Amino acid sequence: MNQDYFAHYLPLIEDEMRRVIGDAPGVYARHYGMLRYHMGWVDAQMQPAVVNGGKRIRPMLCLLACAAVGGAVDDALPAAAAVELLHNFSLIHDDVEDDSPTRRHRPTVWALWGVPQAINAGDAMFTLARLALHGVSAGSATPARALEALAIFDYACLRLTEGQYLDMSFEGRLDVTVDEYLTMIGGKTAALLGASLELGALLGDADQAACGRLAEFGRNLGLAFQMQDDILGIWGDETITGKSAASDILTRKKSLPVVYALANPRVGAELRARYAQPIESEAVPAVLELLAQAGAHEYVSRTAQAAHQAALAALAASGVLVDGNEGGAALLEVAEMLLGRQS
Amino acid sequence: MNQDYFAHYLPLIEDEMRRVIGDAPGVYARHYGMLRYHMGWVDAQMQPAVVNGGKRIRPMLCLLACAAVGGAVDDALPAAAAVELLHNFSLIHDDVEDDSPTRRHRPTVWALWGVPQAINAGDAMFTLARLALHGVSAGSATPARALEALAIFDYACLRLTEGQYLDMSFEGRLDVTVDEYLTMIGGKTAALLGASLELGALLGDADQAACGRLAEFGRNLGLAFQMQDDILGIWGDETITGKSAASDILTRKKSLPVVYALANPRVGAELRARYAQPIESEAVPAVLELLAQAGAHEYVSRTAQAAHQAALAALAASGVLVDGNEGGAALLEVAEMLLGRQS
Repeated sequence: MNQDYFAHYLPLIEDEMRRVIGDAPGVYARHYGMLRYHMGWVDAQMQPAVVNGGKRIRPMLCLLACAAVGGAVDDALPAAAAVELLHNFSLIHDDVEDDSPTRRHRPTVWALWGVPQAINAGDAMFTLARLALHGVSAGSATPARALEALAIFDYACLRLTEGQYLDMSFEGRLDVTVDEYLTMIGGKTAALLGASLELGALLGDADQAACGRLAEFGRNLGLAFQMQDDILGIWGDETITGKSAASDILTRKKSLPVVYALANPRVGAELRARYAQPIESEAVPAVLELLAQAGAHEYVSRTAQAAHQAALAALAASGVLVDGNEGGAALLEVAEMLLGRQS
Repeated sequence: MNQDYFAHYLPLIEDEMRRVIGDAPGVYARHYGMLRYHMGWVDAQMQPAVVNGGKRIRPMLCLLACAAVGGAVDDALPAAAAVELLHNFSLIHDDVEDDSPTRRHRPTVWALWGVPQAINAGDAMFTLARLALHGVSAGSATPARALEALAIFDYACLRLTEGQYLDMSFEGRLDVTVDEYLTMIGGKTAALLGASLELGALLGDADQAACGRLAEFGRNLGLAFQMQDDILGIWGDETITGKSAASDILTRKKSLPVVYALANPRVGAELRARYAQPIESEAVPAVLELLAQAGAHEYVSRTAQAAHQAALAALAASGVLVDGNEGGAALLEVAEMLLGRQS
């Protein structure tokens, strides 16, 4: 049933995003072409392409929230496009900020067109995300509701920049606390997932309580999702994730297992010494051993599980998990899928 | 009288922007501190500072437009803050894109905190500009009007990214046309000035025709302003502009005098040859001679003058230039001041 929703919604989402970005001929062809490239619709020569443009999780959750509260998904479609375009804006800028030359097995926008154009392309994608959301005014949303949707969206954007700030500020530090880490992913990952669900519910005409619960579901899902990602980044199966094993150790990422172990009285000092300089692949087993001694895997699994449970509790409290509510059932399925994933 | 308006409005604008950015203690202190630094409110150690934060032309025009149509300026204050914050977002990213280490005699944000944090700080400033505009809902604006204001603002943002795209794409080219140049400044400079006036008029409760005329006034003022800037960038008096003489020649900027002369049948070929490689200061007189032979100064002065006249015609047509309308008179004064400036 879940798959039916994907099959039905994904083309709608894709069409809406294509409409918003447009294919601007003339002097701006390359400007918008860079955005279309990033979305996976064209290749670097701007010829139509069919490539992996990402999982479109956020817009799916947005539309499912709308359906689950009994709304018409067309009313939430502009918001679905908006949250996915916003996510992609953040990826374009993240790739510049992280100096990442590839994404989804293709060169990143900055790698092809240079950093200055990539920054500006990201700014354009950011703007188009907002303009996509204005589309709700053409549907059944009153001006007051459209305004509320824009405010939810804009505050989520602010949380995103706060989370990104913290994430980058962690790079030079060996004293990041678990609290700081949780604040960081609260902004960088959870805020937009929360907004995706809240917007879907709002535009589906849910009452304030249900909107709040679904936002909470989304935020907790985001936290659990990110911690799961942290686990895969260290202990994931290379043949399944497609990333090199222990990639987060080699890049010395301050993910939760590491942050947790850095504060461990027994292994913290040695881990800090190792993380104070580049880590070669020969040193990975020793780092894994330190993480094991700190019980980092168990701690993060437990914490992710708690966030997962909190997500499910909020979903149940929202009232959508009742017999016959297929949208609600689909939300539950997507949540289980996201947290059971191996890649 | 003009000066009275500046003395009265500037503190209001500054306070509103300070309120929107906030001074976030705790983990985000440095994130918001970078924005406060850029605005000229603190130094690099985040200590209070009094430095030149720019002319605040856009918010002044926004408030004057509101006053000129008989509105209460408090109703336009959130828009005034929004357009100035948006302008400053674009400066933070421009400085990264242009690799500029200083602005207003201080190190730029990227020069102090690195490119990744500067990109993200710009994204935060962009977001705060939008959040500032949401403030109109707390005033007399209906939700429908607030929504209209947000749409005007968001479309201006898109024009800004288009203009910036074109400007950067000119760098490697010697065949930029005058039309392309005009399209570029239409996006990069004129769109936001137009939106500043349109928002002020809209929030001052002007009718659609007056809003349109004032937007047109702003756009043409923007065009004239930019061309004036182009003239000063080549022929400005170093002791007045504070920039080195002929700075736009040394950086090989595709400003209007150069674009015009590049297409000149008599001197174009030689100018293209010179612009195909770095220009040393010894070569500046020869370039100036080519521009003189093409009549570039006269052409740009004439074109700027035409835009200036179009601006004044639109201002007159808006109906605000009547006896006793001090706001209208002040708009006229600001226009004359902007175009008569020597720096």
